[in-house]
Amino acid sequence: MNTIPTDQLLNQLNWRYATKQFDPQRKISLPDWTALEESLVLTPSSFGLQPWKFVVVKDAALRERLVPVSWGQRQVADASHLVVFAIKRDLKEQDIDAFLNRITVVRGVSRESLGGYREMMVGSLLQGRDAGGRRNWAANQAYIALGNFLTSAALLGIDACPLEGIEAAKYDEIIGLGAQGLATVVVAAAAAKRAPLEVLAAPPREGAPLRSE
Amino acid sequence: MNTIPTDQLLNQLNWRYATKQFDPQRKISLPDWTALEESLVLTPSSFGLQPWKFVVVKDAALRERLVPVSWGQRQVADASHLVVFAIKRDLKEQDIDAFLNRITVVRGVSRESLGGYREMMVGSLLQGRDAGGRRNWAANQAYIALGNFLTSAALLGIDACPLEGIEAAKYDEIIGLGAQGLATVVVAAAAAKRAPLEVLAAPPREGAPLRSE
Repeated sequence: MNTIPTDQLLNQLNWRYATKQFDPQRKISLPDWTALEESLVLTPSSFGLQPWKFVVVKDAALRERLVPVSWGQRQVADASHLVVFAIKRDLKEQDIDAFLNRITVVRGVSRESLGGYREMMVGSLLQGRDAGGRRNWAANQAYIALGNFLTSAALLGIDACPLEGIEAAKYDEIIGLGAQGLATVVVAAAAAKRAPLEVLAAPPREGAPLRSE
Repeated sequence: MNTIPTDQLLNQLNWRYATKQFDPQRKISLPDWTALEESLVLTPSSFGLQPWKFVVVKDAALRERLVPVSWGQRQVADASHLVVFAIKRDLKEQDIDAFLNRITVVRGVSRESLGGYREMMVGSLLQGRDAGGRRNWAANQAYIALGNFLTSAALLGIDACPLEGIEAAKYDEIIGLGAQGLATVVVAAAAAKRAPLEVLAAPPREGAPLRSE
């Protein structure tokens, strides 16, 4: 265990803000980006099912095509890196089985020992929800990943900006996700540490207090 | 800026796992918990609207009453701290106006200068979505907070466990959220650093790789 002091955590979370302009020159270093990708992969999800696919869009021409379907937001093309948070459009029993098969390999347990776990997942996710409910559940998980991504980036001093204002169906088409049963839910643009002038532009906070019971 | 090295981030994200058993004796220290609460408050949200309420349930009797509506999961009562992630059940124009009024105070800008921003929020969140869509949007934001919370806790070496398997409507009733127009979406239990034996119980990872385009 190699924890950080509380003031370092809060310092970086206060430093973070949703960067609106990205300088195409400020590339994230390979080690930093590799770590951020790895942090995404380590995101927890309900049942551990990870009903998502994180797509890093690197092709410059592809990214330019995403600008008009992102209400013209240039971050999509100008940021150093762009991650599309996509989900499985319709989770099926075979997804659950593929997940369980992976567990048997990684943890070295028998498929039979996971029978109860399978039943619980099928009951909660497939029988207990309609297609829309399953998509909402999967989208929620993708947003855990987004939260983890934004905090991880802040701790590394990487600027990031989540973008909800996108035409998700057009993203699916342009990146070719639809044909694979995937659906875009949200996007994040990221760039290397911001320039000094932008630091001054970061707005003050207005977080609402918690409530105790 | 006071960033951390990439290996420290990954070390703590690898250390994190969804703790299943909590020892009621392992209380989180006041400075650690205060920092975790503050990290929650700093969670980014779409438009900065923060359509959530984080409720820290401290009353022991209240927490015991939550166990049976959490499929008997003892974490709800045994963990050092319990946070309920609730959302506004039906976001209204007055919520947007209250948010804008707060901005005028915190940032010292005029209400008039925020007119375009208001229009954008009303268009996207109220006119562009039905009640269910607004709830899904708000729930997504709460899950950003959950992701941020879990990562922040991991960095401080605090054990945490998200719980989706709860009867949300019963939570609303028991904690008294429904009457305030709030709705529970998810819960997280947290406790001080885990005992050495539990470290051995943390399962190996099976994260799926990212895809590049």
